[in-house]
Amino acid sequence: MLNFTFSNTTKIVFGKGVEEKVGKEAAVYGRKVLLHYGGGHIVRSGLKARVEASLREAGLEIVELGGVQPNPRLSLVQEGIELVRREKVDFILAVGGGSVIDSAKAIAIGVPYEGNVWDFYAGKADAEESMPVGVVLTIPAAGSEASPSSVITNEDGWLKRGYTALVMRPKFALMNPELTFSLPPYQTACGVSDMMAHIMERYFTNEPEVGFSDHLCEAALRSIIQEAPKVIAEPENYGARANIMWAGTIAHNDLLGMGRSEDWSSHNIEHELSAIYDIAHGAGLSIVFPAWMKYVYKHNINRFVQFSVRVFGVEQDFFNPEQTVLEGIRRLEEFYRRIGLPVRLQDAEIPADRLEEMAAKATANDTFKLGAFLPLGQKDVLAIYELCR
Amino acid sequence: MLNFTFSNTTKIVFGKGVEEKVGKEAAVYGRKVLLHYGGGHIVRSGLKARVEASLREAGLEIVELGGVQPNPRLSLVQEGIELVRREKVDFILAVGGGSVIDSAKAIAIGVPYEGNVWDFYAGKADAEESMPVGVVLTIPAAGSEASPSSVITNEDGWLKRGYTALVMRPKFALMNPELTFSLPPYQTACGVSDMMAHIMERYFTNEPEVGFSDHLCEAALRSIIQEAPKVIAEPENYGARANIMWAGTIAHNDLLGMGRSEDWSSHNIEHELSAIYDIAHGAGLSIVFPAWMKYVYKHNINRFVQFSVRVFGVEQDFFNPEQTVLEGIRRLEEFYRRIGLPVRLQDAEIPADRLEEMAAKATANDTFKLGAFLPLGQKDVLAIYELCR
Repeated sequence: MLNFTFSNTTKIVFGKGVEEKVGKEAAVYGRKVLLHYGGGHIVRSGLKARVEASLREAGLEIVELGGVQPNPRLSLVQEGIELVRREKVDFILAVGGGSVIDSAKAIAIGVPYEGNVWDFYAGKADAEESMPVGVVLTIPAAGSEASPSSVITNEDGWLKRGYTALVMRPKFALMNPELTFSLPPYQTACGVSDMMAHIMERYFTNEPEVGFSDHLCEAALRSIIQEAPKVIAEPENYGARANIMWAGTIAHNDLLGMGRSEDWSSHNIEHELSAIYDIAHGAGLSIVFPAWMKYVYKHNINRFVQFSVRVFGVEQDFFNPEQTVLEGIRRLEEFYRRIGLPVRLQDAEIPADRLEEMAAKATANDTFKLGAFLPLGQKDVLAIYELCR
Repeated sequence: MLNFTFSNTTKIVFGKGVEEKVGKEAAVYGRKVLLHYGGGHIVRSGLKARVEASLREAGLEIVELGGVQPNPRLSLVQEGIELVRREKVDFILAVGGGSVIDSAKAIAIGVPYEGNVWDFYAGKADAEESMPVGVVLTIPAAGSEASPSSVITNEDGWLKRGYTALVMRPKFALMNPELTFSLPPYQTACGVSDMMAHIMERYFTNEPEVGFSDHLCEAALRSIIQEAPKVIAEPENYGARANIMWAGTIAHNDLLGMGRSEDWSSHNIEHELSAIYDIAHGAGLSIVFPAWMKYVYKHNINRFVQFSVRVFGVEQDFFNPEQTVLEGIRRLEEFYRRIGLPVRLQDAEIPADRLEEMAAKATANDTFKLGAFLPLGQKDVLAIYELCR
């Protein structure tokens, strides 16, 4: 087990009606709040009005910036930074899912920084401070509500890049599972795929003696696999929605990766897909992750046997570990299909004519390798894209 | 699932050599530190000297208070409160296990309080502030290093009472598994029993739709059951020590109880045992918990079937759930025995002549009931003590 530091300071307020507390929670951090959100859904559902009423009741002044798109854009972040500076905003409230939260985090580290906020995502600078950010979560998926990470897409070259700094962890996240009742099945499924990927990126490690976090990762995966078909079949099943929502936070609040080296190559391989084709991140992951598994499992076959047996309950073939592993990957694909997700490029109507370009971009023309489990060069990444066909 | 708030602000710094960072971590909170500890073990091992050197290097002045006993006493807490006030100490550093940490927490809430610190434990007052507390952990067991709780014994009547307030959560905990290499097997086993009990007190709930935290609890228990015999057999097995130590923190940092009603009657039933007989808390729990299970399992037999199957891998008898449950309890007792713990009063040389007195004290002469899973009156508690024989 590796040495580690775990410090998760995000206050989670979870359950029915908790969004009504947003004014009280936000008032701790200032008097003027940027209300950051995406499209019209939170307007139509009445959530925006409820949030605004709570903020006003707590004596807060509201500045608005909507329009965050999936795969949130750098241009809106820059608009947000200027708006916050001009209006002297004290606090940023993200009402939405991962894209809105990631955009809010980018604004929050951009405001006190003199250079271009993209410097952080381009690996040219480190964020030493951040404005405080709070969250009213509407989509369980990205885990951004309690993570120190943000992913932004730069329209200039369609570069999708992530950045992590502890100062970016939100101060609080208000999580009411009822707010997720209206999520369409496909978006629900994409969220499930995203949180599973967050766990699997941590699970597939070469670090020995991490039995406790292995068990925690497997528990989270099994629970998600058990609850996901329920939320697809019964969108208003509170218990199933609650378990999925809470699992999505734990999947990515760092707990499950403590003491382990993490991989993250599947995320990077997927980012090229969603940057070019604007496919939902979770749908890209359900295509990429099984392909990555097929390419790397021989590197540490025992870990994949453990995954198949403990997560998917595969009856172990003690004389043929490969058989056990392939059955586990098959069941993962079957699970993705069952909840309506693509597992091949053609399922998502993505052509296979730019695989070489994506492999080159993902590795910057083979100048660095992706992942820690089995570091992957440009040729490896191309082979994984080929396995997605 | 119940509504909940989860806010765990303790910074965990985990791994080889992390105690060397104590000066840097403590200096954040002041210039004068109370070094609080138990007996001579940390002196003989050289840990005390290393901690002092790190504190001095960071420019901190040290005031000392040793002598904390297992089942920490109110009188020493009161001495600590006076010492801290007199010496104008800024920060309290607990170097030791749960008893030292609990004593430090009691001092920390006692200093800013005008009344008697026992008021908190007697349920007569609520702690609104606390001095900052830091921890160098040497015994994985109580989980006090990241919990908001403290248990103190009042020598006047040998009352052992717990108190919980969020302000009591330590600011940081430095956790080096190597510091636990020298723990004797019995003390190691008592720690294992304590952390398992923290999980089981949360696991046995009537709250429906808590599948995700059920899975997490089971994962933690399975992991502890897998690692514990290794640490008993090989005291210097770093990986096994590390998994046990980290599991002990997660067992009691609130995570596993979120959204659930928790029970805690076994803890209260045990407290009477260890208050009178000064038996180790973990050894009391390995006697009480199986007896409690035998008394209550019929109240929610499916939950106990799930426990037996998922935690102990009992081959389920689908036509006889009771058989499945009893086999699970039998395996729990077998596990405790395997690691050297008592499972009956006579195993710990405790006579059975004060059971009625303890049942009366635990329920204040039947004026309140213990636990939430199946609330227990004086007669129930007495029946459970009888099952401990």
